[in-house]
Amino acid sequence: MQKAYEYIEGKRAIIEALDANCKIKRIFCMSKPDKKILDIVKNIEYCDKQKLDSMSHHGSHQGIIAEVESFRYASMNDIPDNDRSLVVVLDHIVDAGNLGAIIRSADAVGADAVIIPKQRAASITAATYKSSAGAVFNIPVIQVANLNQALEQLKSRGYWSYAASEHTDTLIWDADLKGKVALIMGAEHDGVSPLVLKNSDFVVKLPIDGKVESLNVAQAATACMYEWARQNA
Amino acid sequence: MQKAYEYIEGKRAIIEALDANCKIKRIFCMSKPDKKILDIVKNIEYCDKQKLDSMSHHGSHQGIIAEVESFRYASMNDIPDNDRSLVVVLDHIVDAGNLGAIIRSADAVGADAVIIPKQRAASITAATYKSSAGAVFNIPVIQVANLNQALEQLKSRGYWSYAASEHTDTLIWDADLKGKVALIMGAEHDGVSPLVLKNSDFVVKLPIDGKVESLNVAQAATACMYEWARQNA
Repeated sequence: MQKAYEYIEGKRAIIEALDANCKIKRIFCMSKPDKKILDIVKNIEYCDKQKLDSMSHHGSHQGIIAEVESFRYASMNDIPDNDRSLVVVLDHIVDAGNLGAIIRSADAVGADAVIIPKQRAASITAATYKSSAGAVFNIPVIQVANLNQALEQLKSRGYWSYAASEHTDTLIWDADLKGKVALIMGAEHDGVSPLVLKNSDFVVKLPIDGKVESLNVAQAATACMYEWARQNA
Repeated sequence: MQKAYEYIEGKRAIIEALDANCKIKRIFCMSKPDKKILDIVKNIEYCDKQKLDSMSHHGSHQGIIAEVESFRYASMNDIPDNDRSLVVVLDHIVDAGNLGAIIRSADAVGADAVIIPKQRAASITAATYKSSAGAVFNIPVIQVANLNQALEQLKSRGYWSYAASEHTDTLIWDADLKGKVALIMGAEHDGVSPLVLKNSDFVVKLPIDGKVESLNVAQAATACMYEWARQNA
């Protein structure tokens, strides 16, 4: 079972979380916290170093720990019913920085949801609050046990799925992205997994002209999302 | 004057630099280095901890330091004469991760060069080798004293300049990016500086639909570069 709360350790991380609109339930600290924290958080519990040490995961609390509610994932039912809709499906992205960056771009482009798998993938933590610049609180993020089932559900709701992969000759510009699109982005090293690739309606790619082997997945996702936005403007 | 060499400290950073095609001139170490390093670098100098400590900038050498040549910037003359050309001009990007990510994408999209300013901006270091996945060695990176002069030179060579900024109603899709384009991306917080903005031929933007205030600059740059690529395909 998922824990109902999470701890954020250290003044800097706590201020970053506040900046990212994270709701802090309680502060545990040894001395009066920073004014910026005090102005927002009213529930302050003073304690000794021993207590903080016992709560700390990585021993970097520097005298202050914030208790925040665990991130509340949305459900498939939270995806609104829009004629033009983009849902971004992440097939086991493992890097919290990439996950946050993709969620930030998905929000910017006006996507309706981001779907991530429960296992073997980055999930939403305090690190993602920061790397998404708070966008995790603006767009539904859905965590599912089975990506293929989620894609089936999207299909039954009128979505066409497009997997981004190098294993195709179809450039994304030549694909028709008008309407309801599920854009599938693969993991950092392995790309979209074979079964998901097989189940997707279309496979598209961004052309790679340079000598680097591939784009960073967050960059590639953003370029693909903006191509959806362009076609649906 | 720029130093002729740079030190990379610690086994992990050295292996990452090798993976990014960085040429290592010499290894200083206390004991036999990792096989992966030994296979590539022939010039090994064994020394004591005191010597490594004296060379170390941040005391994290963990027994091994690599000497690499300082990055060799290209010059404006290295920009090839292509009818279709993209030159990416970075107006004081300060984060090494963003700089590397943009260079990686510029290489992927087939840009002809990246121009960065000498002062108050991230420059190419071992950190950028990694964040660019080695792309700094594939595409000319030009460091200039004055961005406005560089833009003037590009103009005289037939480039039109497009500054990416929120201060416009023109969507990048509606701009004509065919041919020779200088794409100007602004700094993380301040965007394109007023004088550069004034000197650019066009100001364009990506639409922002979500609640986040802006895209990460590396994501925005990639989406803009791929729009150039789409129009010039």
